[in-house]
Amino acid sequence: MPEHEPPTESGQPDPGYLDVGFARLDVDRARRTGDPEVVFGQGKTPEQVVTTLSRLAATHHDRAILATRLDAEARAAVRESLPAADVDDVSRTAVLGPLPVARGTVLVVAAGTSDAPVAAEAMITARVHGAHAERVDDVGVAGLHRLLAVRDRLDQADALVVVAGMEGALPSVVGGLTGVPLVAVPTSIGYGTGAGGLAALLAMLNSCAPGIAVVNVDNGYGAGVHAARIARRARPRDDA
Amino acid sequence: MPEHEPPTESGQPDPGYLDVGFARLDVDRARRTGDPEVVFGQGKTPEQVVTTLSRLAATHHDRAILATRLDAEARAAVRESLPAADVDDVSRTAVLGPLPVARGTVLVVAAGTSDAPVAAEAMITARVHGAHAERVDDVGVAGLHRLLAVRDRLDQADALVVVAGMEGALPSVVGGLTGVPLVAVPTSIGYGTGAGGLAALLAMLNSCAPGIAVVNVDNGYGAGVHAARIARRARPRDDA
Amino acid sequence: MPEHEPPTESGQPDPGYLDVGFARLDVDRARRTGDPEVVFGQGKTPEQVVTTLSRLAATHHDRAILATRLDAEARAAVRESLPAADVDDVSRTAVLGPLPVARGTVLVVAAGTSDAPVAAEAMITARVHGAHAERVDDVGVAGLHRLLAVRDRLDQADALVVVAGMEGALPSVVGGLTGVPLVAVPTSIGYGTGAGGLAALLAMLNSCAPGIAVVNVDNGYGAGVHAARIARRARPRDDA
Amino acid sequence: MPEHEPPTESGQPDPGYLDVGFARLDVDRARRTGDPEVVFGQGKTPEQVVTTLSRLAATHHDRAILATRLDAEARAAVRESLPAADVDDVSRTAVLGPLPVARGTVLVVAAGTSDAPVAAEAMITARVHGAHAERVDDVGVAGLHRLLAVRDRLDQADALVVVAGMEGALPSVVGGLTGVPLVAVPTSIGYGTGAGGLAALLAMLNSCAPGIAVVNVDNGYGAGVHAARIARRARPRDDA
Amino acid sequence: MPEHEPPTESGQPDPGYLDVGFARLDVDRARRTGDPEVVFGQGKTPEQVVTTLSRLAATHHDRAILATRLDAEARAAVRESLPAADVDDVSRTAVLGPLPVARGTVLVVAAGTSDAPVAAEAMITARVHGAHAERVDDVGVAGLHRLLAVRDRLDQADALVVVAGMEGALPSVVGGLTGVPLVAVPTSIGYGTGAGGLAALLAMLNSCAPGIAVVNVDNGYGAGVHAARIARRARPRDDA
Amino acid sequence: MPEHEPPTESGQPDPGYLDVGFARLDVDRARRTGDPEVVFGQGKTPEQVVTTLSRLAATHHDRAILATRLDAEARAAVRESLPAADVDDVSRTAVLGPLPVARGTVLVVAAGTSDAPVAAEAMITARVHGAHAERVDDVGVAGLHRLLAVRDRLDQADALVVVAGMEGALPSVVGGLTGVPLVAVPTSIGYGTGAGGLAALLAMLNSCAPGIAVVNVDNGYGAGVHAARIARRARPRDDA
Amino acid sequence: MPEHEPPTESGQPDPGYLDVGFARLDVDRARRTGDPEVVFGQGKTPEQVVTTLSRLAATHHDRAILATRLDAEARAAVRESLPAADVDDVSRTAVLGPLPVARGTVLVVAAGTSDAPVAAEAMITARVHGAHAERVDDVGVAGLHRLLAVRDRLDQADALVVVAGMEGALPSVVGGLTGVPLVAVPTSIGYGTGAGGLAALLAMLNSCAPGIAVVNVDNGYGAGVHAARIARRARPRDDA
Amino acid sequence: MPEHEPPTESGQPDPGYLDVGFARLDVDRARRTGDPEVVFGQGKTPEQVVTTLSRLAATHHDRAILATRLDAEARAAVRESLPAADVDDVSRTAVLGPLPVARGTVLVVAAGTSDAPVAAEAMITARVHGAHAERVDDVGVAGLHRLLAVRDRLDQADALVVVAGMEGALPSVVGGLTGVPLVAVPTSIGYGTGAGGLAALLAMLNSCAPGIAVVNVDNGYGAGVHAARIARRARPRDDA
Repeated sequence: MPEHEPPTESGQPDPGYLDVGFARLDVDRARRTGDPEVVFGQGKTPEQVVTTLSRLAATHHDRAILATRLDAEARAAVRESLPAADVDDVSRTAVLGPLPVARGTVLVVAAGTSDAPVAAEAMITARVHGAHAERVDDVGVAGLHRLLAVRDRLDQADALVVVAGMEGALPSVVGGLTGVPLVAVPTSIGYGTGAGGLAALLAMLNSCAPGIAVVNVDNGYGAGVHAARIARRARPRDDA
Repeated sequence: MPEHEPPTESGQPDPGYLDVGFARLDVDRARRTGDPEVVFGQGKTPEQVVTTLSRLAATHHDRAILATRLDAEARAAVRESLPAADVDDVSRTAVLGPLPVARGTVLVVAAGTSDAPVAAEAMITARVHGAHAERVDDVGVAGLHRLLAVRDRLDQADALVVVAGMEGALPSVVGGLTGVPLVAVPTSIGYGTGAGGLAALLAMLNSCAPGIAVVNVDNGYGAGVHAARIARRARPRDDA
Repeated sequence: MPEHEPPTESGQPDPGYLDVGFARLDVDRARRTGDPEVVFGQGKTPEQVVTTLSRLAATHHDRAILATRLDAEARAAVRESLPAADVDDVSRTAVLGPLPVARGTVLVVAAGTSDAPVAAEAMITARVHGAHAERVDDVGVAGLHRLLAVRDRLDQADALVVVAGMEGALPSVVGGLTGVPLVAVPTSIGYGTGAGGLAALLAMLNSCAPGIAVVNVDNGYGAGVHAARIARRARPRDDA
Repeated sequence: MPEHEPPTESGQPDPGYLDVGFARLDVDRARRTGDPEVVFGQGKTPEQVVTTLSRLAATHHDRAILATRLDAEARAAVRESLPAADVDDVSRTAVLGPLPVARGTVLVVAAGTSDAPVAAEAMITARVHGAHAERVDDVGVAGLHRLLAVRDRLDQADALVVVAGMEGALPSVVGGLTGVPLVAVPTSIGYGTGAGGLAALLAMLNSCAPGIAVVNVDNGYGAGVHAARIARRARPRDDA
Repeated sequence: MPEHEPPTESGQPDPGYLDVGFARLDVDRARRTGDPEVVFGQGKTPEQVVTTLSRLAATHHDRAILATRLDAEARAAVRESLPAADVDDVSRTAVLGPLPVARGTVLVVAAGTSDAPVAAEAMITARVHGAHAERVDDVGVAGLHRLLAVRDRLDQADALVVVAGMEGALPSVVGGLTGVPLVAVPTSIGYGTGAGGLAALLAMLNSCAPGIAVVNVDNGYGAGVHAARIARRARPRDDA
Repeated sequence: MPEHEPPTESGQPDPGYLDVGFARLDVDRARRTGDPEVVFGQGKTPEQVVTTLSRLAATHHDRAILATRLDAEARAAVRESLPAADVDDVSRTAVLGPLPVARGTVLVVAAGTSDAPVAAEAMITARVHGAHAERVDDVGVAGLHRLLAVRDRLDQADALVVVAGMEGALPSVVGGLTGVPLVAVPTSIGYGTGAGGLAALLAMLNSCAPGIAVVNVDNGYGAGVHAARIARRARPRDDA
Repeated sequence: MPEHEPPTESGQPDPGYLDVGFARLDVDRARRTGDPEVVFGQGKTPEQVVTTLSRLAATHHDRAILATRLDAEARAAVRESLPAADVDDVSRTAVLGPLPVARGTVLVVAAGTSDAPVAAEAMITARVHGAHAERVDDVGVAGLHRLLAVRDRLDQADALVVVAGMEGALPSVVGGLTGVPLVAVPTSIGYGTGAGGLAALLAMLNSCAPGIAVVNVDNGYGAGVHAARIARRARPRDDA
Repeated sequence: MPEHEPPTESGQPDPGYLDVGFARLDVDRARRTGDPEVVFGQGKTPEQVVTTLSRLAATHHDRAILATRLDAEARAAVRESLPAADVDDVSRTAVLGPLPVARGTVLVVAAGTSDAPVAAEAMITARVHGAHAERVDDVGVAGLHRLLAVRDRLDQADALVVVAGMEGALPSVVGGLTGVPLVAVPTSIGYGTGAGGLAALLAMLNSCAPGIAVVNVDNGYGAGVHAARIARRARPRDDA
């Protein structure tokens, strides 16, 4: 009684995916979307993370593969098995393979110190997806002067990622200061009615500042992809 | 078969309330709390509003009685039956009797033009409860310069009422600029996930600015009472 | 006892806003963000819509002013008072003044016929904010061939707006086909647990396709601004 | 003081249930519904699981008994006490007794690798309830070609179980490709607003594809029963 | 400036859909799924309903086309413009064209008299989708004898649709009496915490009876499609 | 093709229900539970209300039949067709037939004047179900002296129904004053986060006073039944 | 700087409470309500549980004191320090002092085996509050014959406590079979959308059976108090 | 590739914040609001807590710095590294530096013993923010005499903090007894539907007592700041 039917028969043309037993890796994605598949580590065993990361890297020689949401055990396994990978404990990511040439700039702005892991995930994701990326931390709205001190950098970016927990007000204030495309990331930082990020998410969806787009709670990865795709296609600033 | 038992027997001492058939007016409240009962108009017939307002006024000769949440029909009935009352269509309130001498100042700050009815209710309530009260409208965070232009007035108030719908970010910004006691009022202005005021309420409850207290959605009345009680007991500004 | 304190004193320098009694128009916004303030019609009287629209147009001679969420009465008032305005009944918008020169292309893709008003609002908003914009309607996932028939147009756009109610699956499918920056708009089309757009909103926030950003339910305007800002800054397609 | 009153008196006719102290096993269920009672392991001690499983098997000699939601400790206890049982760690199930002759085919289709435990529970349940059952994994909508590659198998099944977490879009796409009866299973795979499976559940309930029925989050068992009952009663494919 | 781009160019092969301006009718659906597209009337104008219904009927000569969720105005328009249509006021449906030959039997069981519109929609839908269909009404669990009186009919059906509002307990009781495939429909009948159907929906999703599948609140149509697809493929009862 | 199958065949023994076409009246309920079926008017046409009420009265000659949730049109129809009925506009009820002899006393206590319809429904229901019943209104916790003035009457009742909207605190205070069995009814009186009765319902479910049981929002009927069943079975007060 | 102000001054008359430092025990409660205060163990240290239990017992010599929600550590501490206490591991309770003479009977009926702890808490609570109490377990609605086998016992009780998790249908079925006062207890047994007991709670609040009152999720204690107060005041069954 | 861009360049004027690597401390806050920044310990490492606390203390020589939400590890680290700090295990706070001279009085009133940590946090916060502060515990509404025994102290305070979990009724009762400005704090004490504090929060937002303002669940800190700002600015009681 076979547990699992084989999905593809031999002799067929390239199906556009790679069957590794527990997964069908979408090795056609870079052709369709410009970016290879990313390893989402949550819910995967360390062995599955290592296998997926190395198999994807083997089929994309010239392009960095990203793994996200790696717990401590998975990060240790990657460090052990894939010493060429760049593993980061704050963002809980690993990168294997050469970063693409960066075009355009993503600026990641975070409201509080506890938002750092999400902000770091967004920054690294943006780099893997082909943009320059930098971070500015701890510029929450309760002390506006901290944000106003970096106002010029907001306008010079090609795309902004704005990360905030609690009441999630920072994107509204940033969105009132600049017209650079802005994607907001609510974080699960908070307690009581703010636990889980619902307050920040709703605030960002209902922002009175125009043009703010939002991703899921703690989804620094998604914001990084969105922002990098904007930035890498942007005209240079001096090209009016 | 009597439908409704008489709540008090004749010959008893003053029970502290006035039985008007459909209600027991709490005529002892001013003694206990400093302020007479207020007529909450929602769910009352125009006749009930007029009766309650006039009966309360008759037992509090020296003190204005407030009625709130009066629909158009109720406001018309009050204007018709109680010409001495001051009826306001924006705040949907009526005031009958002399305002108390004002002590201290409440400043009501509103984010958007659609927040005006709630802001007006807060302002009038504060006046009926013994404080000076003024409004500043349409200073939402998407154009911070509008708020910064009135920054001095924030610091000069004895209590602030900050009214906002949508993402409800204004109290966080105001609360980062001044240490004046601040009560925030979420409004039901918005749509989609913002309809009903939940987004603004959660934002205010989770504000990163310290010391912000919150009332129910659209509860300008409650904020006005809270702020007036602070302001009328505050030391004069030159009394350090 | 003045009801409403004057926000600005004469003799001061330009405050960056225009006080029209019931509102403080942010006439500095175009300088900060590249786009003038927009008239959000919901909750405004027809007179307030006409006044705001005409006052903003008067201060932005060279640039179209947009009004959104205009009910039938407001649209009639604009047609009557501002015959130069371009009023549209499907999107419930009005545009007054010359459209900017269009750069880049926004493609608005909608899942069902009932999503048309939101899709139309997104398209017109994108045009007012400086991009070419087109629509493709009724390509929901229950009949994939309808979407696959327009696949080339997805890749040729500089930004995508994907509009869907019900289960909101369309952005996930589109996001798996192309890497063009994509902003998703959930609509309130549905019933039962889908009424109000929550199902579609959650689906879009949790999409398995990478890089999808989301706006509030029925917020075609916000998606249009976001997409136009991306498209108008994009390098031409032949400029690798 | 007896803690627990005896539910049945001796000398009575067969009550249709078996009192094992902590439970009244419904040994009449197979007669009424065609299938014996199943052991729901969650909330039961390992001892209770073993007792219930063995007692039910003893009263249904010719028919496999299924136990679901067995944690590691319960699985170990079953392996120890009931070596004839077939214990599976992925689906967290045990089966004791001979499988019924299979009629009809259930195809279990899963969107992501993390959905495997739920998909496996559905497959094994379907087999215990009298149908052939197979799995196809990791064919999420972000890479449609993976699903289209198995399209023929969809049409050849007598019932489909479609398992997905995140945004739960897979049933809508499958339901647009085939008219085979389809039951969808949302899983709790996700994070932020997707944690707990609400997004996937709502998506499936609001699918634009016709005729999709849904079970509770992570309820592979329920879907397996529903699908097997359809499949085992289906006419053979060549019997038009 | 064309408002709406033409989706298909002339000279192309059959795209599988019919462009009627406001919609792309999926005329390929019957080939893929066995059933033609259905007109979902909610959110459509009477004119759009008539157009869609007649255009679909014109392309499916041998098969009835169903329109659902027709308000009074739409039903009047169909009666006026398409006299051959069978319009039903209880289920708010219209059927145009010949019903398919019926195979198998769907029994629709409803808990209360207020559930009749949803039950009727399910019954008519099942008939349009190729099954016999009958209704049993008002057999709620507060008077079990009403249900037990029709117990034989439950077992004789090939598929059951069980409709209930309030606490939604009927499917659990029916599911304990029979093993016939059962799809449950929660209705929005109720008040307080039961308004909108959430209580019934949750009860059905969490039923302790095995194998119950659920559709959206008030979705008699979806249940009818699901049940008909089961019934029309079922072996005759005497074919063990 | 019969639309609706006849539920019972002639010649059978009394099935315990009465088929009136649109409903199966449970005429066996009084035998099982001591009380006849009640007409729930919401969702029924005036004709259905009249038919159901008169048919139930015809089969229960010696016992009053209750109809609840009658809108103005239904009440008018009952007054017109069944002049012997006692129709009440506050509670929106009708009673047809003789009240049973009353045993025991139910006291209905309401927090605010707007709670009157629910309180009246509870009182009339209790009388129809065989208990004495009285009301005390407008004794909310913001003026405790109003409640303390009737404290003796609380202890003298055999069952208490406590009705409150807003924050629903009254049952907690009453439950701390007396040990009489208490059933609490949340009402939908309120606004903002209190609209719909959720705040009051949750407060009552989480009361710190022991032994409080709760019914659905606005369900004065259910509370009246529960309380009457307690009261009519209670020993007389002087029977220790 | 005193951390905690002394709540009462010496020399005052008996305040009706006992200050034990961390709590003010309400030693007047038995006089007001007939039952002494109960120790709610959740959130208390083992030492606090022992202190509170022994202090309350010392002031109520003739009456058992109940402690609920005791975790393993607290139960061990009670067994160690108060050997006269009757500690029960299933219900997680302790009882110290003599049970009152029992009057009337409470029958506790539970749907599933996992509901046992809540059912046991209700039964013991009822005994401490002066009623006979018995349990019937595992009579869920998926096998109705189990419930029908004990139908006589339902009618012979003076009050019923019906405990159920999952879809919470049991109270509706019981409430249709008998008119004995019934209080329903939802339990947190379930998973997915049923986790936490919301589904069962809503089902019970929206029951179609008349007169069902509900307590908080898992609140066997509250149901036991409510039922005991009914039962101990009930006339004997032979006293018509 | 620098991970983190330096936020400020040397040679610039004082930016009003202190960059400590992982945070930008708002050292300008005391100038703007009268109170220095507070260390929110949740989500910070013990090292970050110590660093932040000591750096803030170093820049505010004459004013106590408060740290809140310190877990056991963080409290140990503070005791070890900063022996001059006053660390409190109940409120989980640390205070470093001299308390300001106290003006006015804050009374913290708590409903239950489990609310003590939140009440203690409010009291200490009020002291750090310049007011006298005292606590009264365990005066929940189920035993009103406990509250009435301290009624005089309510009236003598300049601001009240009222803390309650469960149904959150205490603020309504207190707010009916006195007109002192009152801020209510819901706590997460409860279970079932009360778990997490939602019931208490909603009750407080919907209080029928006028003028009650609310903070987030368990936010004793926020209430303490709000109340202290009121109290320290209040006129002495004998200064009419």
